Amino acid sequence: MPQEPKVVKVEELPASEAKWVAFQKISWQDQTGKDRLWEAAARKTRKATGVDAVAISTILRHPLRPPSTIIILQYRPPVDAVCVEFPAGLIDDKESPSEASVRELHEETGYKGKLAFISPTIVADPGLSTANMQLATVEVNLEEGAKEPEQALDDGEFIERVVVPLDELYDRLVKYDQEGKTVDARLWHWAAGWHAAKTML
Amino acid sequence: MPQEPKVVKVEELPASEAKWVAFQKISWQDQTGKDRLWEAAARKTRKATGVDAVAISTILRHPLRPPSTIIILQYRPPVDAVCVEFPAGLIDDKESPSEASVRELHEETGYKGKLAFISPTIVADPGLSTANMQLATVEVNLEEGAKEPEQALDDGEFIERVVVPLDELYDRLVKYDQEGKTVDARLWHWAAGWHAAKTML
Repeated sequence: MPQEPKVVKVEELPASEAKWVAFQKISWQDQTGKDRLWEAAARKTRKATGVDAVAISTILRHPLRPPSTIIILQYRPPVDAVCVEFPAGLIDDKESPSEASVRELHEETGYKGKLAFISPTIVADPGLSTANMQLATVEVNLEEGAKEPEQALDDGEFIERVVVPLDELYDRLVKYDQEGKTVDARLWHWAAGWHAAKTML
Repeated sequence: MPQEPKVVKVEELPASEAKWVAFQKISWQDQTGKDRLWEAAARKTRKATGVDAVAISTILRHPLRPPSTIIILQYRPPVDAVCVEFPAGLIDDKESPSEASVRELHEETGYKGKLAFISPTIVADPGLSTANMQLATVEVNLEEGAKEPEQALDDGEFIERVVVPLDELYDRLVKYDQEGKTVDARLWHWAAGWHAAKTML
């Protein structure tokens, strides 16, 4: 990475200029029949599947190592920070969420896996946006001596991948935060759920 | 609930009319020094703490019942669905995220708890918005025969609370989805992490 990415300027975005995001004024009727308004953001990229994105909780198995997952680190302009996340991406045209999961995992991490499970459609931040996603579980079975594969990133994509034993994930996220990186809420919740199950009396 | 809430109309929201949400055109420089643009949404309600919101993973203990958590069901206009979420809310002025956690849990569920832990600041959907939050763990210790407390909702708030044993949470979320409700991604991830820790071989 030749230099640190950074935000140079933040301006108000007129709706007429927006290419990726739409701004919605939602008129709705509440439980008492009262007319109310809500403001929300929406992605303009949603395809026929009706789902914006997928994220991938990888289960990486190796004969000699503890079961691990893969997390990625990438700079995110909206929060001006390097974020720690599950591999994830938007769903392409004519692609199912399941196909997108296997493709995105390969592109962002180099690993080719097999879809074991995909969640129903879940919503990222339903007080603020229409954004939705599905969480896939993709299994990767490595052989002894397997080499770390090459990522298949697009030009202009800078993504670091890190393999982490599942039992160390929560502590690793705490450490990334202490080092000044920012953890994605969904990844944090997954690790916190795992940690609670393993430690709660 | 006298009637089902519903979306009546969705219009484009001009930036000049937006009261709760701001739209950002972010100029940033990438790792190669190239000037690039990103579009994002931001909440206008962020206070001096720099954190928009808190969510609460409650640990409810009772001498005769399995350890449980509390989830809430509420209609969310951006996704036009009843969402299943951890209790959560925006942080008030002159309030710390920790104080907000205990207050929101009480308002939305009626339970008064003690903060056991609060996460660092994590980001809700960093490709789309600046929204951030902290996840609190709040413990509630009940005595045998304790009655279910009253919620302390604001006028116009319609929130249903449900106590769920932690070991049943994941299956319960699957069932809510099948019934046509929509699960929040963060709650799903927490339950999926717990489920993986309990079931993975």
